[in-house]
Amino acid sequence: MLIFGRRRLLTALLQAQKPFQPCRNMRLVQFQAPHLAGPRLGLESGSGGDVIDLNAFDPTLPTTMIQFLEQGEASLSVARRALAAQLPVLPRSEVTFLAPVTHPDKVVCVGLNYVDHCKEQNVPVPKEPIIFSKFGSSIVGPYDDILLPPESQEVDWEVELAFVIGKKGKHIQATDAMAHVAGFTVAHDVSARDWQVRRNGKQWLLGKTFDTFCPLGPALVTKDSVADPHNLSICCRVNGELVQSSNTKQMVFKTEQLVAWVSQFVTLYPGDVFLTGTPPGVGMFRKPPVFLKKGDEVQCEIEELGVIVNKVV
Amino acid sequence: MLIFGRRRLLTALLQAQKPFQPCRNMRLVQFQAPHLAGPRLGLESGSGGDVIDLNAFDPTLPTTMIQFLEQGEASLSVARRALAAQLPVLPRSEVTFLAPVTHPDKVVCVGLNYVDHCKEQNVPVPKEPIIFSKFGSSIVGPYDDILLPPESQEVDWEVELAFVIGKKGKHIQATDAMAHVAGFTVAHDVSARDWQVRRNGKQWLLGKTFDTFCPLGPALVTKDSVADPHNLSICCRVNGELVQSSNTKQMVFKTEQLVAWVSQFVTLYPGDVFLTGTPPGVGMFRKPPVFLKKGDEVQCEIEELGVIVNKVV
Repeated sequence: MLIFGRRRLLTALLQAQKPFQPCRNMRLVQFQAPHLAGPRLGLESGSGGDVIDLNAFDPTLPTTMIQFLEQGEASLSVARRALAAQLPVLPRSEVTFLAPVTHPDKVVCVGLNYVDHCKEQNVPVPKEPIIFSKFGSSIVGPYDDILLPPESQEVDWEVELAFVIGKKGKHIQATDAMAHVAGFTVAHDVSARDWQVRRNGKQWLLGKTFDTFCPLGPALVTKDSVADPHNLSICCRVNGELVQSSNTKQMVFKTEQLVAWVSQFVTLYPGDVFLTGTPPGVGMFRKPPVFLKKGDEVQCEIEELGVIVNKVV
Repeated sequence: MLIFGRRRLLTALLQAQKPFQPCRNMRLVQFQAPHLAGPRLGLESGSGGDVIDLNAFDPTLPTTMIQFLEQGEASLSVARRALAAQLPVLPRSEVTFLAPVTHPDKVVCVGLNYVDHCKEQNVPVPKEPIIFSKFGSSIVGPYDDILLPPESQEVDWEVELAFVIGKKGKHIQATDAMAHVAGFTVAHDVSARDWQVRRNGKQWLLGKTFDTFCPLGPALVTKDSVADPHNLSICCRVNGELVQSSNTKQMVFKTEQLVAWVSQFVTLYPGDVFLTGTPPGVGMFRKPPVFLKKGDEVQCEIEELGVIVNKVV
C-alpha cells in the first residue's frame, strides 16, 4: 500500500533530481510483500524503519541485490534519489525481509579473527587469515527460523560482521580493497560443533553449512553510510541474555586485508559475502558448554547496522 | 552455420514428434559460437562430435543448463526430439565448449573416496564421506587453460567422476537418489597441495579453489545414457603419460550414498555439482613428488563420458 499521493511523489521526484548529497544511511534490503509479485529491492528507512520500494520508485531497476550491485553507480544513484524522496514507503509490518543477498557465488568465512576470541580458547592469533566457506543454500533472512538439525547435538551461535563485494576483482591490493566492497551487514555464523571439529575429517564445511545456518540482514548498509566498520559494538543475545559482546576493532584481519588475501586465490564477484569471524562468548567454550535448543531466540546486533532475530525451531 | 536445409529440418521435426524412444547418448553441453549471441545449450553428437544447437531447434528453451535442468522433463523431451532429429548441427570446429554447468549453488567435493587412492597414501578407507568444496568461480570449460598461480609451488592433478543434480531435494534416501541426479561428466579437481595440506589451518578450501581449478565437461551425459556410472575406466594423462588409471568401481561411496549423505545437511538444487574423489597416481605421492608446470597438458578421461584437455599456463 503506497502512503503517498501522486502530487507528493512528483514533488519528491523533482527534489530528488537535485545535485547529489552524500547520504549517510543507505540501507538496501531484499523483501517480499503479499500484494507485490516476487522478491523486490528496497531501502530500510533507518534501522527498524519502514521500507522504501525501489522497484516502485524506478521499475527499470533490477529486482535482486546481485543484479543491482552489478549495475554499480547507475543503480546506486537511483537508490540515492529514492532515499532523498523517502518514498514510496511500505509499512514495515507489511513486508517480509529476505537476506539482503541471496545466491552469491561465494560465502567466504574467516576463522579465529578476533583477538579476544583467540584468547578465549587459548590459541595463538593467526598469522594468516583462515578461510572456510558455507554454501549459498544456508542463507536465510534476518527474522527467519534456524532449523535445529537432528543430525547435530552441538549447535552454537556466532555473531559476525559481514561485508558484501560490489565490484569484480582479482589480486586486489589492500589499498584498493574498499573500492570493491559495497557495504556491511549482520551475519549469524550458526555452527554445529560436533560436525565442525570432530567429524568430516576436521574439514569445517558441513558443520557450518546446514540449511538456515547463515541468517543475514536486515540491510546491506552501504560503506559510505558506516562511520568506521572496524569500530562497531557487536553483540549476541540468547533469550535476552548477553552472551557475546565485543567491538569490531578486535578483528585480526580487517576488511581490506581479507579482500586482498582472498582475491589472491579467486576472482571476487558482486554479491560475494564475507563473514569476518566471531568475538568471544560462544557456547562451546563455556564451562560447561551450552548449545542452542528448540525455542531459543538469538539476537545478533552490530552498531549502525542493526539487529537480526532468529528463533531456533 | 546450419548445414541442413529447411525441408530436411521440417521432415526431421515431424519424425521427432513420434513416440519417445529411449536415447542412449544424450550429451548436453553449454557452448558459444562467434556468430550467435551469448552462451547456448546444445547436444554433443557423440563423444568428440559436432554440436546440435538446442536453442535453434527450439527457441523457447532456456539458454543455461541450470534453467534447463529446473524445467525437468519438459526440457529433456525437447532435447530428445533434437537428438532424434540430429539437427541443426554446428561443426565442432566452430564452437567453444563451456563447462556443462556454470554458477551452481554448490560444488561439493569428496576426499579419499577411492579404495586404491587410500592404499596409495596408507590411510584407512573412510567410514563416512569427507566433504569439502570449491567455489563456483573455479569452474572452467573442458578445453580451457589452467592458470598456474604464483602463490603455489605444488599444483597437482586429480581426475574425477562428477555428477550433477537435476531435481531439488533434502534428506533424500539412497534408494531415491538417482531420481535427483541429471547425469555425469568429467572433472579435474586441480589441487594446490601446499595450500591444501599445510596452510590455511588445514582447511582444504583455498588449495582447491583457485580460479580455473575446476575444469568440467565436455558434456553432461544424462544418467540414462550411461550403462553403469560405477564401472567406468577413469584415467589422467600428463603430456601424454598415463599417471592415473583406475575404475569408478573403486569408489568407496557411490553416487546414491553421496546424494543421501550430503542432503542430510543441505538442500540440493538443480545444477549442484559433485566431484566424487580421485583414484591413485596423483603427483604428491610420487617419489619424488611431481607437480604441474607451465606448458603441461593434462587430459582427464572417463569411459562413455569423454575427455577434457587443459593446458597449464
